[in-house]
Amino acid sequence: MVPRIVVDVMGGDDAPSVVIEGIIAATHADQDLHVIAVGLPDAISALEEVSRVTCVGASQVIAMDEHPAGAIRTKKDSSIMVGCKLVKAGDAQGFFSAGSTGAVMAAATLGIGRLKGVSRPVLATVLPAINKPVILGDIGANADCKPEYLVQFALMMQAYASSVLQVSLPQVRLLNIGSEDTKGSQFAQECFALLSEHVPQFAGNIEGKEILDSQTDVIVTDGFTGNVALKTIEGTSKVVLSQVKSALTANLMSKLFAAPLSGQVKKLKAQMDPDQFGGAPLLGVKGVVVIGHGSSGSVAIANGIRVTATAIRNELTNKIAASL
Amino acid sequence: MVPRIVVDVMGGDDAPSVVIEGIIAATHADQDLHVIAVGLPDAISALEEVSRVTCVGASQVIAMDEHPAGAIRTKKDSSIMVGCKLVKAGDAQGFFSAGSTGAVMAAATLGIGRLKGVSRPVLATVLPAINKPVILGDIGANADCKPEYLVQFALMMQAYASSVLQVSLPQVRLLNIGSEDTKGSQFAQECFALLSEHVPQFAGNIEGKEILDSQTDVIVTDGFTGNVALKTIEGTSKVVLSQVKSALTANLMSKLFAAPLSGQVKKLKAQMDPDQFGGAPLLGVKGVVVIGHGSSGSVAIANGIRVTATAIRNELTNKIAASL
Repeated sequence: MVPRIVVDVMGGDDAPSVVIEGIIAATHADQDLHVIAVGLPDAISALEEVSRVTCVGASQVIAMDEHPAGAIRTKKDSSIMVGCKLVKAGDAQGFFSAGSTGAVMAAATLGIGRLKGVSRPVLATVLPAINKPVILGDIGANADCKPEYLVQFALMMQAYASSVLQVSLPQVRLLNIGSEDTKGSQFAQECFALLSEHVPQFAGNIEGKEILDSQTDVIVTDGFTGNVALKTIEGTSKVVLSQVKSALTANLMSKLFAAPLSGQVKKLKAQMDPDQFGGAPLLGVKGVVVIGHGSSGSVAIANGIRVTATAIRNELTNKIAASL
Repeated sequence: MVPRIVVDVMGGDDAPSVVIEGIIAATHADQDLHVIAVGLPDAISALEEVSRVTCVGASQVIAMDEHPAGAIRTKKDSSIMVGCKLVKAGDAQGFFSAGSTGAVMAAATLGIGRLKGVSRPVLATVLPAINKPVILGDIGANADCKPEYLVQFALMMQAYASSVLQVSLPQVRLLNIGSEDTKGSQFAQECFALLSEHVPQFAGNIEGKEILDSQTDVIVTDGFTGNVALKTIEGTSKVVLSQVKSALTANLMSKLFAAPLSGQVKKLKAQMDPDQFGGAPLLGVKGVVVIGHGSSGSVAIANGIRVTATAIRNELTNKIAASL
């Protein structure tokens, strides 16, 4: 399948410049890719001469800090809403935006629509765990969940792992506060029972300390717990790496020894950076939707477009529909 | 107040040897301290000649992996149960154990009893955040909470911060998935409203990424979320530090440069180690109860006893009773 992807030129802290660079890099790297660039006329004009890029104007922009539901209701001609409508109309199979996560989720759910049978879409992310990438979700689309939602989340994330990450029979675990079946809140125990019954390759609970160091492929949780866990990983990595940096440059002697190592630490920091994975897929809507980090640079944008293209080529949407 | 502390000689992965060493170190460092050492006769005999140590026999031991409720019901003569009864009887003002967290919580709640007006005791921990220590709780005593419990947790942790960490007017924040008032699950929003109403110095939400890098003193959450956050911090620190170590020793060249720095990284690892803070206080019972990490060595045991003594000297139990 030749991927046609709508890209939100206005999305992200450094939009539109880094998004324009990312689109150019992505279409250059992938000679089959078609991009529909949506944004303010002034912004998209830079892309008019680029081959395999079509420009579509939008007269409004949803800012990162706007209230999502309010913004998508009042800004019907925003780049996010126009982009979702293009997917809905069948002009493209996917949408990538580094804009407001809440606004993209709301616009995709309302504007593109959920797949048949999906109660709630799940926002997932691929974490750079030690042994292999691990998919964690929900990371914030649904702060309040019913246990049956988690069964769907798990099945959709399994479909993502097998189609995009090429994992056969992806193993699923439930984020919980102990390894035994009987551990956790009432909610977690109900999820455990339903997952055991309905999810092939469900392998039990996983604790917070094992998220980055396990043999599992998919970790399922509600959007509140997943968001806390994800942000705690980001914050802890940042703090520990900054303390390593201070320790290495504590005095002149260690500074001398450390200088040749700072490259290694930088590499590590990049490895732990979620941007390398190009964004968080929103699974369960009628199209491939990937949301990039607000702080994305052009490389992260290009990665996000590439991930969206891979998902389209691997017919992710059909596979998710079939998984339920 | 002269502190009299019951210490569970059988608690911890390396008990009784490290506990015995920890008791000797603690009584040596603090010339006013009295310890009541509880354990199997064979184990405690090593302490019989130590000054300011009284030995009390117990015929049973609760293993780390036993089901807590079952264990405290069937093992009434275990070191944990005997220890709690000594506090209940007024023979000591505090109890320290590095044994099963679940068993100590259950034994303390049932055996020593809750302070008047306390719905649920809260298990807290002191985290080595960048700017200053921060108290996080509940970290696992109550997987299911009502919003009103979090108000009590916050008030009790404030009392701990001001009496043991000597913070005046400790600031409290709610662990949530966004900084605005309207963010979070239904439960988090209800907690936000109650905390705003009833907790002085409540300063709003805090996200997972800021736990180790904030200006706050107390972070309040339910026991499920708190346990996930705490274990995610532990796991992430461990993974990042081990990756730093591999990066530093990736090749002969960097190995040569890194050798003098491994001490710095080790120091950092120790700094991130919760053992340095001597354990997690269980707040809301009629006595000072501190639970050490199962992997505690003798230094961590001595620290835990010291923390228990400080809390007794500062009349923590009375202050918690007065805070509600």
